[in-house]
Amino acid sequence: MAVKTDIQIAREASKLSIQEIGKKVGIDEKSLVPYGHDKAKVSAEFIKQQAGKPDGKLILVTAINPTPAGEGKTTTTVGLGDGFNAIGKKAMICIREASLGPCFGMKGGAAGGGYAQVVPMEDMNLHFTGDFHAITSAHNLLSAMIDNHIYWGNELQIDSRRVVWRRVMDMNDRALRQITASLGGATNGYPSESGFDITVASEVMAILCLANDLEDLEKRLGDIIVAYRRDKTPVYCRDIKADGAMTVLLKDAMQPNLVQTLENNPAFVHGGPFANIAHGCNSVIATRTALKLADYVVTEAGFGADLGAEKFLNIKCRKAGLAPAAVVLVATVRAMKMNGGVTKGELDQENVEAVKSGCANLGRHMENIKQFGVPVIVAINHFTLDTEAEIAAVKAYVSEHGSEAIVCKHWASGSAGIKELATRVVETVEKDEARFEPLYPDEMSLMQKIETICTRIYRADEVVADKAIRTQLKAWEKAGYGHLPICIAKTQYSFTIDPERRGAPEGHSVPIREVRLSAGAGFIVAICGAIMTMPGLPRVPSAEVIRLDSEGQIEGLF
Amino acid sequence: MAVKTDIQIAREASKLSIQEIGKKVGIDEKSLVPYGHDKAKVSAEFIKQQAGKPDGKLILVTAINPTPAGEGKTTTTVGLGDGFNAIGKKAMICIREASLGPCFGMKGGAAGGGYAQVVPMEDMNLHFTGDFHAITSAHNLLSAMIDNHIYWGNELQIDSRRVVWRRVMDMNDRALRQITASLGGATNGYPSESGFDITVASEVMAILCLANDLEDLEKRLGDIIVAYRRDKTPVYCRDIKADGAMTVLLKDAMQPNLVQTLENNPAFVHGGPFANIAHGCNSVIATRTALKLADYVVTEAGFGADLGAEKFLNIKCRKAGLAPAAVVLVATVRAMKMNGGVTKGELDQENVEAVKSGCANLGRHMENIKQFGVPVIVAINHFTLDTEAEIAAVKAYVSEHGSEAIVCKHWASGSAGIKELATRVVETVEKDEARFEPLYPDEMSLMQKIETICTRIYRADEVVADKAIRTQLKAWEKAGYGHLPICIAKTQYSFTIDPERRGAPEGHSVPIREVRLSAGAGFIVAICGAIMTMPGLPRVPSAEVIRLDSEGQIEGLF
Repeated sequence: MAVKTDIQIAREASKLSIQEIGKKVGIDEKSLVPYGHDKAKVSAEFIKQQAGKPDGKLILVTAINPTPAGEGKTTTTVGLGDGFNAIGKKAMICIREASLGPCFGMKGGAAGGGYAQVVPMEDMNLHFTGDFHAITSAHNLLSAMIDNHIYWGNELQIDSRRVVWRRVMDMNDRALRQITASLGGATNGYPSESGFDITVASEVMAILCLANDLEDLEKRLGDIIVAYRRDKTPVYCRDIKADGAMTVLLKDAMQPNLVQTLENNPAFVHGGPFANIAHGCNSVIATRTALKLADYVVTEAGFGADLGAEKFLNIKCRKAGLAPAAVVLVATVRAMKMNGGVTKGELDQENVEAVKSGCANLGRHMENIKQFGVPVIVAINHFTLDTEAEIAAVKAYVSEHGSEAIVCKHWASGSAGIKELATRVVETVEKDEARFEPLYPDEMSLMQKIETICTRIYRADEVVADKAIRTQLKAWEKAGYGHLPICIAKTQYSFTIDPERRGAPEGHSVPIREVRLSAGAGFIVAICGAIMTMPGLPRVPSAEVIRLDSEGQIEGLF
Repeated sequence: MAVKTDIQIAREASKLSIQEIGKKVGIDEKSLVPYGHDKAKVSAEFIKQQAGKPDGKLILVTAINPTPAGEGKTTTTVGLGDGFNAIGKKAMICIREASLGPCFGMKGGAAGGGYAQVVPMEDMNLHFTGDFHAITSAHNLLSAMIDNHIYWGNELQIDSRRVVWRRVMDMNDRALRQITASLGGATNGYPSESGFDITVASEVMAILCLANDLEDLEKRLGDIIVAYRRDKTPVYCRDIKADGAMTVLLKDAMQPNLVQTLENNPAFVHGGPFANIAHGCNSVIATRTALKLADYVVTEAGFGADLGAEKFLNIKCRKAGLAPAAVVLVATVRAMKMNGGVTKGELDQENVEAVKSGCANLGRHMENIKQFGVPVIVAINHFTLDTEAEIAAVKAYVSEHGSEAIVCKHWASGSAGIKELATRVVETVEKDEARFEPLYPDEMSLMQKIETICTRIYRADEVVADKAIRTQLKAWEKAGYGHLPICIAKTQYSFTIDPERRGAPEGHSVPIREVRLSAGAGFIVAICGAIMTMPGLPRVPSAEVIRLDSEGQIEGLF
């Protein structure tokens, strides 16, 4: 029998009504704001009412450096959530929302895969509950109000060459990366350079995902630096008086979205900031709310553990006062082989030596996570062609390095395939050994924070930053931003800045090309290498084959 | 006691759940796709199932030329719907959705006013059910795919100087009216001129509002002309292969939105095309569905009857096979006074002579509507300071010209204030005297169609169009577009092209500045005067005072 595709499996799911899903974790019908019959937002009032309740245990799912072989981080997150429920624990899943634009370039990013998926998949890859549209509107309202302020006399004395707030669109449109705006004469304003990023790269997205509530959201929006004056003093969103209206536009988007897994377990899918120039995690409000409603909350971070888990722990957990009870590190035999030097074409052949050699990448991520004081368990996401000898090699390596690796078959079997991992995580959590600490204290200087991440996580020998960058960091410290954490934007494919260097390289150097202040989100971005904030479409975009079939179902999106 | 504001009245409304509203017109819970507890889309399946059922009676509400005094067309539409229900008729209302962008410039456009409103007002002025966001996404996906096609080799040989498809945003942003895109080097494409219109001006909006179903939608999207080659042959959306993906993005947006009046009667609020470069009516699918569900359907058209009703009748009714049973023409004593030469500051003083003189405007609209073979009844939307003598003057004028004028107090009293009008409309409809005919046949030449509207509706002496325009119209006839109706874009404040000429001017000339082909929507736009398709924000935009108050309610939007 042919293997079913993700979308076939998703469409065959027997979904419960979203009200029934809500009931499982104690959300009454009145507190659910439905979007269709299988999606709902959880009302802000309900969330407030949970404040006094005790928190469940937070489990982070992260991964080795991504390879073209695929690791299945989201699939494992979903599977583990189902696994917890299957062994009798009340568990929820928290993951990010997908961006619309990229779905029309390459095939859409499903929420999990095989028998570990979140549904309704079509909606999640399209407009979903409109959160990203709201973020786009709020962002662009601010852009329009800045130019409008200048147009009507520029009372704030904005240096029109130093407007740093661009525009956003949830579309892969390379033509908008760099534009000249306000052409065509006096009624259209003063000609100026501008450009568009994709919506997930908006600071508004990062802010929404880090804000505690609407009040905090409004404050952070007000803190955004939108431009500078000739004397280089900053002009804030608050000065433009856009923060109130932006908050109104984001009022509904701040409420987490409830959906379900194929096994009818509750999942929050909320927020989706870029994982390079932002922190790459679902919203704080979703994670916090889930912790009030469930005993176990499984969440994931973007990219590999060097970027994703590091930011999750140093930015999101620090800011939100969260502390994970355990980390699950996802690896695959195939990815180990690629880390061991095998090319994509040779992945189907057994190669135990390559697996052993590739395990160095896994090992370093394990070590790194332990630096944060959190126990780590390795999940081997099973692929059909993995051999016994290869699996044994990974298990032996992990065991030698003080952890345990557990084979998980949730892709093929749903929760039944991941009960062992779920059980071991519960055992680990119940030992109560986690003593979470961020890697660096707030008081450390900004440059030292960058160096700490580069040397202790990436294992670089040196960090190269020229005088302009060091001066800028000092200036921000003087301006009161010294306590902020660092968000490093670099390639996700390697510990180094060279995407080709797999495994666990040593003796490398990390050059800091640029630093940016996200004053509203509350972090300093350090950019190492080229970062693309507006993707383009490929030669044959998937949009060309996306359409409704004769039965009205979407084809080509998956 | 102080008069309550619209928003106070709206917030005090005791709304029924949207399921109960649906039940009133036979829509079961499964066929409603809820968006929160007070909004829902009606499922495409349900709509299909209504196909064989008989149609109710369609009543168009239109108005005299708008004046700064206000006419209350939407208020009367909503009031009349409630009025029909109050006298025991099963009635529905169909109106347009509001655009987001302008709400941040001037105060938001409420859906009706006083005790004749549609709720929830806040949502309808913000994201509502996401229809406009979907239209924005579909429009801009096509833009990105055009530039992407050129970027990857331009197989279709598009002349990059002749790309006529711009971009859209639902925001008042004058800086985007005219831009240079694809700057910054080879990876960003070929530098080109472009620009943004506001979303309601998108041809995609007009198409969604005229399409019969998803299949027709896809066909019309495919028909859009996006660019020309060097030999001036057109390149269609279909050639770019964007029509399928655009349809997928618009799948949910095609389903009409059900909300309720303050008196808990059902209303469809769906679609909102520009009333100048497009036809300015709510969607065909909403009107058609309402006709299947109710005995009386009240709808409105944009601007005054010379533009709005003319387009409703010649474009929407013709295309959709609709035939109104009666037209209600809204006038106010105050607007009559302004048409009679009184300034805004003098409106509060009785001036019977000015009312009499201003009635010429009303009279001409009455005559015009009768040309379409439909009976017309005048609704005098009552204002507190109207005097008996002024009202009597309007009534006498209308009576002398073969119709009846009825005073309506729905703003102050809801349905109780408009029962007389509702009763008279029912009596008129039951006489079955309507013999609707569009003003011109499909076969007439495009230039003759323009002349017909200008001479028979605007009562112009002549139409001025230079050779280039006449040649263009002939070329479109040769290309197979000769059967299309005309959509005239001109000032809404006068029968002439001069917004200052109130009343019923004669002896004027209409110059056609430009003609455009909306091949997907299916009409030819004739532009007479300056048309703004991307508004700007005012000196002090209302966004500056829009915010959430301490109780989480929106202030400043209304």
